Amino acid sequence: MDRKEPSAEDSLIARYFRPLATDPGAFDLGDDAAILAASGEDIVVTTDAIVEGVHFLPDDPPDTVARKALRVNLSDLAAKGASPAGFVLTLALRSADDAWLTPFARGLGSDVGLFGCPLLGGDTVSTPGPAMISITAFGRVPTGRMVHRSGAKPGDRIVVTGTIGDAALGLDILKGGAATALADAAAKAMLIGRYRVPQPRNALATAVRDHAHAAMDVSDGLAGDLAKLCAASGVSAVIDAPSIPLSAAAAELLARGTVGIETIVSSGDDYEILCAIPEASFEAFAQAAGHAGVAVTSIGTVIAGASAPRFLSGDGREIALPRLSYSHF
Amino acid sequence: MDRKEPSAEDSLIARYFRPLATDPGAFDLGDDAAILAASGEDIVVTTDAIVEGVHFLPDDPPDTVARKALRVNLSDLAAKGASPAGFVLTLALRSADDAWLTPFARGLGSDVGLFGCPLLGGDTVSTPGPAMISITAFGRVPTGRMVHRSGAKPGDRIVVTGTIGDAALGLDILKGGAATALADAAAKAMLIGRYRVPQPRNALATAVRDHAHAAMDVSDGLAGDLAKLCAASGVSAVIDAPSIPLSAAAAELLARGTVGIETIVSSGDDYEILCAIPEASFEAFAQAAGHAGVAVTSIGTVIAGASAPRFLSGDGREIALPRLSYSHF
Repeated sequence: MDRKEPSAEDSLIARYFRPLATDPGAFDLGDDAAILAASGEDIVVTTDAIVEGVHFLPDDPPDTVARKALRVNLSDLAAKGASPAGFVLTLALRSADDAWLTPFARGLGSDVGLFGCPLLGGDTVSTPGPAMISITAFGRVPTGRMVHRSGAKPGDRIVVTGTIGDAALGLDILKGGAATALADAAAKAMLIGRYRVPQPRNALATAVRDHAHAAMDVSDGLAGDLAKLCAASGVSAVIDAPSIPLSAAAAELLARGTVGIETIVSSGDDYEILCAIPEASFEAFAQAAGHAGVAVTSIGTVIAGASAPRFLSGDGREIALPRLSYSHF
Repeated sequence: MDRKEPSAEDSLIARYFRPLATDPGAFDLGDDAAILAASGEDIVVTTDAIVEGVHFLPDDPPDTVARKALRVNLSDLAAKGASPAGFVLTLALRSADDAWLTPFARGLGSDVGLFGCPLLGGDTVSTPGPAMISITAFGRVPTGRMVHRSGAKPGDRIVVTGTIGDAALGLDILKGGAATALADAAAKAMLIGRYRVPQPRNALATAVRDHAHAAMDVSDGLAGDLAKLCAASGVSAVIDAPSIPLSAAAAELLARGTVGIETIVSSGDDYEILCAIPEASFEAFAQAAGHAGVAVTSIGTVIAGASAPRFLSGDGREIALPRLSYSHF
């Protein structure tokens, strides 16, 4: 036996993940730690894990699982106004299965390039239970410039990126729910894609940092996340529900009554940015968003007060929300 | 329903973990990300996860599980010459059980204070499988001063801290193995304690940074980890096995033949520092270790060559090592 033969774990890392460790601070994954070099900027740190059967389905394609694991973290960086600097990956698997790891690493590598977010290090462990991917991601912002949940002020516009509710509808289709009634196969595929591969809005990070009083990403449902932003800011808000941006597929399902707006605003996995933009900056923000290629929609207004944000229908009546968001426990 | 009522997940975080988030950059765990403030130093990043049934036993006391999860990461920081700056925690649990979470948070909080390593953020997720605690820890070193696995040079002394093999013997006792033959209850408790609560050598970090050519922590077994350090440094080593520091309990089990030296050097969970110290610095290093209250022992010498490190018995014969270390896959 050659005693310098690397362990199966080391081989796994070398084979699948070393090509993703393009940052010099990763030391080719050959050390016990990585370096985030001093740059004079603040390091923004965020961590999010996804669990098989909870955040992704056992038969989701491995490349989409990898991309989701990274993108839910990238989404946090975007909402905080930070540019990606790298990430560490903890992978808990029942076995080291080439047929799963090969597309997993390929999907991850694709996003490493796309978002300029190199792998810095990680840990692979065996588990007898469901697979779990835990990522801690790092971003950089100029000193003191991270965008917080707090800071929204009465009069600010409430703005969201992209469209809301698609991922929850995609999951509903995968589970054989009511949304399978949608006739258009391409629309169904789009919704499923939105569940499996979020589209984090990192292109908007600088504009958020330049203009937003407060921001967070929508991960647990628009209503619940807006309530959190308002609570952290000590304000309330009024939302014009018909202004909430929907995909054509979601709008069709809403129009048919297959899904209610209360479900759309309280389901998770949107990974859009929710932010409070001062009225005076809105035009500049919208223009910057246009340049970044990210759709932004003003859906309501921050108001003074401590009451929960209200969602109003087209006729001005308050929409009852039986639940605000997804909670694990 | 009060729509600002926090979710069960938010309540769990507030109740158990906010008191541990003493760093201003943690924002009281009330934001989506934390800040590691720019300090002009390099940030050292390390990540290690522990899984129920793999790295800890289902009936290990929750406070020891928490401390182990943090300490295996602190051990990496110590070996890299870094001082702790904080950590993020991902907790995957089947349920939010007060009887488990209360001692878990208490144990974690105790170590947060002891090692000056505040909680910066985290994620709590539900899992149908075994509990898993994934921690990413941060340290600071002066720019460019992280101690690497590479850098050991022929003539350097191979040094380890503390004692080797105790944790594996403790696990053996917990599993009802041969080490249960040990008569002394206090010795058994000590070995079990070494398995459940590693003693990371953070007090030695500055001395390691000042004197070591190369260093890593011993987590997967001394023989395997030394082989990794040698491979990274492009050198080999000769170890005088009788010099390997053992606790009285381990020495007794070795003398009785209950356990062999080849098992002691190839079992995991030691969390001691293994380093290469130039001969000219050894006295100064040993003195600094004495001031830090950490026992250090010279166990061998780095030699030129690419062959695997050799472990020699008292009569100069090479000890056969059927395996070098623990591997997950």
